[in-house]
Parts: sequence; structure tokens; C-alpha cells
Amino acid sequence: MSIPSGATTSIILRLEMNKETASFGQIATAISDAGGDIIAIDVNRSDKTTTIRDITVNVSDHKHTELIVQAVGAVTGVKVVHVSDQTFLLHIGGKIEMTPKTPIKNRDDLSRVYTPGVAKICMAIHEKKSRAHSLTIKRNTIAVVSDGSAVLGLGNIGPEAAMPVMEGKAVLFKQFAGVDAFPICLDTQDTEEIIQIVKAIAPSFGGINLEDISSPRCFEIERRLIEELDIPVFHDDQHGTAVVLLAGLLNAVKLIGKRLEDCKVVICGIGAAGTACSKMLLAAGVRNLIGVDRAGAIVKGEVYENEAWQWYAEHTNPERLSGSLSEVIRGADVFIGVSGPGVLKVEDIQRMAADPIIFAMANPTPEILPEEAEPYVRIMATGRSDYPNQINNVLCFPGIFRGVLDCRASRVTEEMKLAAAKAIASVVTDEELNEYYIIPSVFNQTVVERVRDAVIQAAYESGVARKTVRPDSSTTTAKPYQLTP
Amino acid sequence: MSIPSGATTSIILRLEMNKETASFGQIATAISDAGGDIIAIDVNRSDKTTTIRDITVNVSDHKHTELIVQAVGAVTGVKVVHVSDQTFLLHIGGKIEMTPKTPIKNRDDLSRVYTPGVAKICMAIHEKKSRAHSLTIKRNTIAVVSDGSAVLGLGNIGPEAAMPVMEGKAVLFKQFAGVDAFPICLDTQDTEEIIQIVKAIAPSFGGINLEDISSPRCFEIERRLIEELDIPVFHDDQHGTAVVLLAGLLNAVKLIGKRLEDCKVVICGIGAAGTACSKMLLAAGVRNLIGVDRAGAIVKGEVYENEAWQWYAEHTNPERLSGSLSEVIRGADVFIGVSGPGVLKVEDIQRMAADPIIFAMANPTPEILPEEAEPYVRIMATGRSDYPNQINNVLCFPGIFRGVLDCRASRVTEEMKLAAAKAIASVVTDEELNEYYIIPSVFNQTVVERVRDAVIQAAYESGVARKTVRPDSSTTTAKPYQLTP
Repeated sequence: MSIPSGATTSIILRLEMNKETASFGQIATAISDAGGDIIAIDVNRSDKTTTIRDITVNVSDHKHTELIVQAVGAVTGVKVVHVSDQTFLLHIGGKIEMTPKTPIKNRDDLSRVYTPGVAKICMAIHEKKSRAHSLTIKRNTIAVVSDGSAVLGLGNIGPEAAMPVMEGKAVLFKQFAGVDAFPICLDTQDTEEIIQIVKAIAPSFGGINLEDISSPRCFEIERRLIEELDIPVFHDDQHGTAVVLLAGLLNAVKLIGKRLEDCKVVICGIGAAGTACSKMLLAAGVRNLIGVDRAGAIVKGEVYENEAWQWYAEHTNPERLSGSLSEVIRGADVFIGVSGPGVLKVEDIQRMAADPIIFAMANPTPEILPEEAEPYVRIMATGRSDYPNQINNVLCFPGIFRGVLDCRASRVTEEMKLAAAKAIASVVTDEELNEYYIIPSVFNQTVVERVRDAVIQAAYESGVARKTVRPDSSTTTAKPYQLTP
Repeated sequence: MSIPSGATTSIILRLEMNKETASFGQIATAISDAGGDIIAIDVNRSDKTTTIRDITVNVSDHKHTELIVQAVGAVTGVKVVHVSDQTFLLHIGGKIEMTPKTPIKNRDDLSRVYTPGVAKICMAIHEKKSRAHSLTIKRNTIAVVSDGSAVLGLGNIGPEAAMPVMEGKAVLFKQFAGVDAFPICLDTQDTEEIIQIVKAIAPSFGGINLEDISSPRCFEIERRLIEELDIPVFHDDQHGTAVVLLAGLLNAVKLIGKRLEDCKVVICGIGAAGTACSKMLLAAGVRNLIGVDRAGAIVKGEVYENEAWQWYAEHTNPERLSGSLSEVIRGADVFIGVSGPGVLKVEDIQRMAADPIIFAMANPTPEILPEEAEPYVRIMATGRSDYPNQINNVLCFPGIFRGVLDCRASRVTEEMKLAAAKAIASVVTDEELNEYYIIPSVFNQTVVERVRDAVIQAAYESGVARKTVRPDSSTTTAKPYQLTP
């Protein structure tokens, strides 16, 4: 359980070399003395006095890069023009592209894809709007919408800077579930404007994934869009986290032989994710749930400015415990952290009941580091990929949207989220289940299928599915438009 | 110059057959007696009493389809469940998809495309917003925005029904110019809302193609967005048509040895396209331009409610001609129609100057049919693909946007449009130029390159280009992000 050193990565140094004073030998020596491994050299341009070369070098990490850049920069007659690492190179021009499904090879194709042939498709949809779900990209396309107000752990960095995250999400949607997702980053953080804009662009989409919108605006935006649109709206930071947390917790209590109904659960950090996790836990049967934020446990009788906390105080903490995390955690079976680094101490864990379960999901640094907690916990999960039991939304959102698109659901109900959590948990078999494997890997291909099927089933039971899906098909099925009765 | 019969197309009949009463032989006979040609048979489902079969049949046109459907429906024990033609089948699920540029094969890839690696890309853009132009899809992606208020010749059919056209446009953008275009159809027709929404979604895009928005709202929407955004905004129905018209006209006057400056030009239909064509013609040097709408020639001194017409009256018709089309066309060198079918009569053409040039661009039925006009005209162009000299926007918009994206232009200036028109015209060589070939085919691959290069050149001269483009490169070039100085 130690943090592994980063995988070796490569950088590209673009160097401007004075032909008279600098030699490639000097540069090669400088790089290898600094521990770098030259793997490619390209001459980019050359004139009488200078040469521009791109030198690809294997390095171990960012600090190593700096060392090498310093060493090369110190060679007489050499100027470091650019340093690009693989992550930057990967992002040039963005991470996704639009692709035509059928190429236009001749006039005949053109007349079907575009005018005049396209007119009859337009009129078929004009006659019956719901046909857009089969005759346009609405069938398989969702918007990933953010206002850039709460991006990763980076905060309010604005719409342009949020794009790489939303593009990455689009890549994941396509690769894991075949869902076409398009990133829409909005240049407004006004709640009403965001609601109005998302409603206005909805005709192009079969679903809306809200992403990285700060609390409490995210609650109102999601609630209103769910009410006012007839396609599913899902704020992944809230519900994705909640679903995957529950999946892990279901397997954790199963492993140690406790029942969720009997567990005392303390959750720390009652923001967007914390609130959604709490609601999910209540829906799953947890009865003794205590929410803790900076001011201590949220308890009935106190007056909170935050509306969400007011609701929270009414619906949790049946024993009306008050005080700090250290106080209320006494005897708890489960700790769930969606707060910040270092919030949980070893002494806190020592006050918990036997077989403590810790979900320390603060990113990138958990509420307590696994290596510190390990001697005192039974089961430990984090949000990180470099420890066991990663609680990662990627386990949830691709399958959820694959499911809602396939059965043309009008919304994501509580039952569908619960079904998704159980489906994720079910991928880990009883034989496989152990302290270091309570949740499947994000690369486990069974996950999306299980989640999709469970979500569709629950959508039918919830009465929100609008299309018949053949139970044996794992891809979408389509009825051609009926030209004559 | 006659209308060729439509290419043979195929349809798929989904038939439910009663096993006891219907035989496939009867069906095959019915289809072939009706002139249909069976080319494939698939059994879709079969149970004890019924079989569902999909039968693919070659037919000549829509009426032929109806004949065959009737004949098959008349066979005892057969029910026609669906009839799908190729155009409908092509549209199922839409015509475009999102594709990741680099797949995520393992955790290492995931950590670069998404968290944690993506964070440094976000922060690089947060530090300097213009980096979004190289590190996100903004570099090569535009929005095709419509409110569905004036779609093709179909009118105000709404946003869902407009989607197939916008998707088709996205296919053309990608295939002809490598531009990633995403269709955004808006569920509002309010001018201010559309302006506000397009501004809000702009962070994701490097340009905005407005499409099929009705007049006069389209003028205000475009004007305001050009003013208030720092990416190019281009209403294709106006400027695309104007650019391609001018390209054809330049070659037409060249062929017959007239000068634009000396021509009397009558343009019929002063809506969005007509106004844009008129402005383009004035910019290209036309001095004697007369606009005609339903009430006759637009002339200074009259009072018009339509603001655009007021402007028009001030800037055209120097001889202050008034009256109907038949009256003002006397002695005209050029007629341009962007109005409706049958507006121009043979007698009108007979009143024109020698070597009449007719651009009858009403779609699908021109102002006068070429077969009717032919004995009286020197050069004839239409908007249709089944006559020579098709004035088709596809000649313009891919190259225009390829150019503005490559040089990162902030807008499309009048000079850039003029340059595009001249570039299109230049593709037809002096040796090739004749009455039936004044404009290149939409499948001529030289067009996009010529337009792109001319647009970039003009963008630099207009001072709106924001990126250095290597003159010898026909694809975008990219500077990696500078990590260290």
C-alpha cells in the first residue's frame, strides 16, 4: 500500500542550436548526465546559423524534466524553445472529433444525407417529434454540461479551462459504453441562465450529464431540469459518487457480516456529493446516519442557512448527536469522507466499532492516508487509482447513460440508481470478495453491461422507460420509420 | 437539359406473414408484377403462426413504392408492418458520432486523458484562456446553430425536425474540410435568447455557423454575435449563397466579355439571402443593382417597414426605377432569383440586354425552368444538382471555416468573402470555361484548398488572423504548449 512511482513518460524538447557554438554531442551528454534517455531526434528546421531540433527523451517525472531542461539550457549556444510532455501533446486539438457515419461518395449519397432527401426525414419528425429519438443523433448523444465552477479539485476555473475534463469524460462515455457525448462548457454561472440554456439546447440530446457545477447551485439546476425536461438529467458529481460508494459499501458490509440497517454511518463533508451519498444511503436502508461538516454534526433543532443542511437535519441523526467528528464517530461502523485531506485521525478510527470501514474519498489526498490507517481498519477505500478499492464514477456514468438511452427513459429515478449500485457490487463474486477487492476495476468490461441491464429493468419498473428493448440485446435496437401503415 | 429520372433506390418492406394462408411465392409474384426487383430477404422473427420478413426491393421512386406496398398488402395473410427506404435507414440513430482521438487502453492512458493528468492542461488554460484554441476541441470544432424557423424550403418546422439538416451539414463540414461540426438546435425563437445562448456555449467552439434562421431575426442575431464574440460567426444562408453566386457571376461575365461595373443587375427576392447577395455584389463592384420584391422594385423615397429594405433603398437602384419585375428588367444584363417558382417569364428574358445571364436559385423549383429559358438565355444557373451550373453553398462553407480555424480568425470580413468567391471562380480555368461550366462541382477537391488559402490570406490582410500558418501546409499546424520559458 505505498504510492508507486509514476510510470516513465516521455517529453519533447524543442531546441534552437547555434551551429557554430553548439554540438549535438554536448546536448546528448548533458541529457544523459541528467539521467534522461534520448529516444528520438527530429530536425524541424535548419538555416545557415541555427538548427531547430525536437528531441524526445524518456524521463521519470516532472522534477526530472526540470533537471534535464536546466542541463540542456546550460549548454553554450542552445536555447530551449519548448518542452512538451505526452499529456500536453495528447491534448493538442482536443481529445474527440466528429465522424460521419456514412461518407458522401457521390451525388446520390449527397442527396440522401442532405438536400433534397433529408427533407422527408425533417417532415417525419415535424409530424411526430418523438421520432427525433430514432432519426437523429438524439438517440445516442448526451451533453456533458459544466459552467467550470467546481472542476476536479481545482475550483472555479471557468468554462474554457473546464473543457479538457469534459472532453475526457466524452472519451470515457464513448469508449466504455458507446455513448456519444459532447462537451458544452457555459460562459455563465447564473442558475436561471444555465437552466434556460440547457432546456434550449435539449432538442439535440437524449440526456444531460451535469458536471463540476458548484454547490448549492447544482441542486436547483438539476432539480429544475429534471422537472422541466423529458430527457434524463444526471449530476454525476452527486449521484455517480453516491452510486459507486453504495456499491462498495454493500460489498464491504457483506464481507464483514454486518447489515446496513444496523450500521452507524458517519459521513464527513455535506456538500453536493455528501448530500447525494447520504440520500442514497438512506434509500438503501441506512437508519443511523450522521452528517458532519466544519461546524460539527448536523442535528435537528439547530438553524442552518444552507437549505440542504436544514433538510439534512430533519432526515438524519436520529439520536441527535452533536459535536465534532471525533466525538460523534465513537462506535461508528462506517466512516465516509467527501471532505478534505487529513480530516480523519488514527485516534478517531480507534474510537469506532469493531471492523471499521473507511471510505476516504477526498481527492487527490484522502481524509487519511491508507498507509497510516491500515493497522486500525478492516476495509479501506479511496478515490485514488494507486490504492486498492477505488471509488471511481467511471464505474457508474457510462452504464447509467447506456441504459437510459437504450430504453429511452425520461429520467433517472432513485430506484435506477440503487439498481446501478447493486449491479456494480454484483460484479465482485463471493469468491473474489476480500478486504482489498470490494469494488471492480474501471477496466472490468462486465460493469457497463450489468449497470445498463439493471438500469433498464428499474426504468421499466419505475414507469419511465419509453421504448421496448429486446432483453437479449446489449446494443440499441431500432425500428425503421413507418412510411405507410 | 431535361430532368433525369431519379436513380433507382431500394426499400425494405417488413412483412408479417400468416404461415397458414400466405406463401412467399405469392408475395414475390405480387412484387415482380408491380415492377419491383427483390434483392434480399431476411427472416426477422418466426413463431408458430407468423413469420416476420424484411424484403429489400429495388424501386424507381416514391410512387412505385406505393404501388408495390398496395400489391403486397393485397395478398391474403400478409400485413405490411413497415416500409423503410434507404434515406430513412441512413438516418436511424443520426448521421454523425463522437470519436475519441486516442483510446484509453490502460490506467496510464486514463490518467492522461482524465484525472489526475488532465488537471495541468486545465490549469494551463486557466492561466491563459487563448490556449483553449490549441489544447481543446475549440481548435477544430464549430457549432451549426439553428432554431428551426426557416429550414430548407420547409419553413418553421422547429428544432427537432431541423436536426437532420444540421447533422447533414456536419457531415459535409467534416468530409469536405476536416472541420468538426456539432449541430445545436435551439428550442427558442427569441432573438435575445438565441444571442445569449450562443454566447454562453461559445467556449466549446472555434466558430459558429448560423443556419436556417428566419429573416429578419437572422440579421440582428448575426450582427450582435459578430460584435460580442471573438470567434467567427457566419450565417451560411446569407453569405454562403452570396459567395457562390458571385463566384458564378464572375465567371459568367468573364465568359461573355462584360464588366460587373457596367452590368445592370436585377435581383428578385429581398430576404436574408437576397440582401446578402446584394451586399456582396456591391462589394464586388456592381453599381446598377435593382432589388425587386412582391411590391415591385425597392426605390429610394418609398417608406418601408422592413429595416433591411430601408437600407436597401438607400444603397441601390441609382436610376430610381420603380414598378414590377417585368418593367425594371428591361435592358438588364443579369437576373438573380432568390424568390420562388415561376417568377420569371420568357417575355421578361426577351426584354433583357444581349447575352442574358440568369441565376434562378429558388429551391426546389427555380424562378424559370432551364428547359423553358434555354432558347433565350446565354448563361443559366440554378440551385439544383440536376442542371448545369449549380449554385451550391457546399462550395463555400467548408473552405471558409477551414480557413478561419487554421488562422484562428476572430471574424469573417467582407474581404474574406470576396476572396472566397474569387477562389471558387478560379477553379474553372479559361480553357474549361463555357456556358455550361461557370462554377466547379461540389466534388471538386481543389475548391476547399483554394477557398481556405484565399480566406487565410484575406484574414491576414484584414488583420483578423491570430495565428501564424505555414504557407505550405494545407492542414493545421500546432505549437506544443510551452512548459518552461
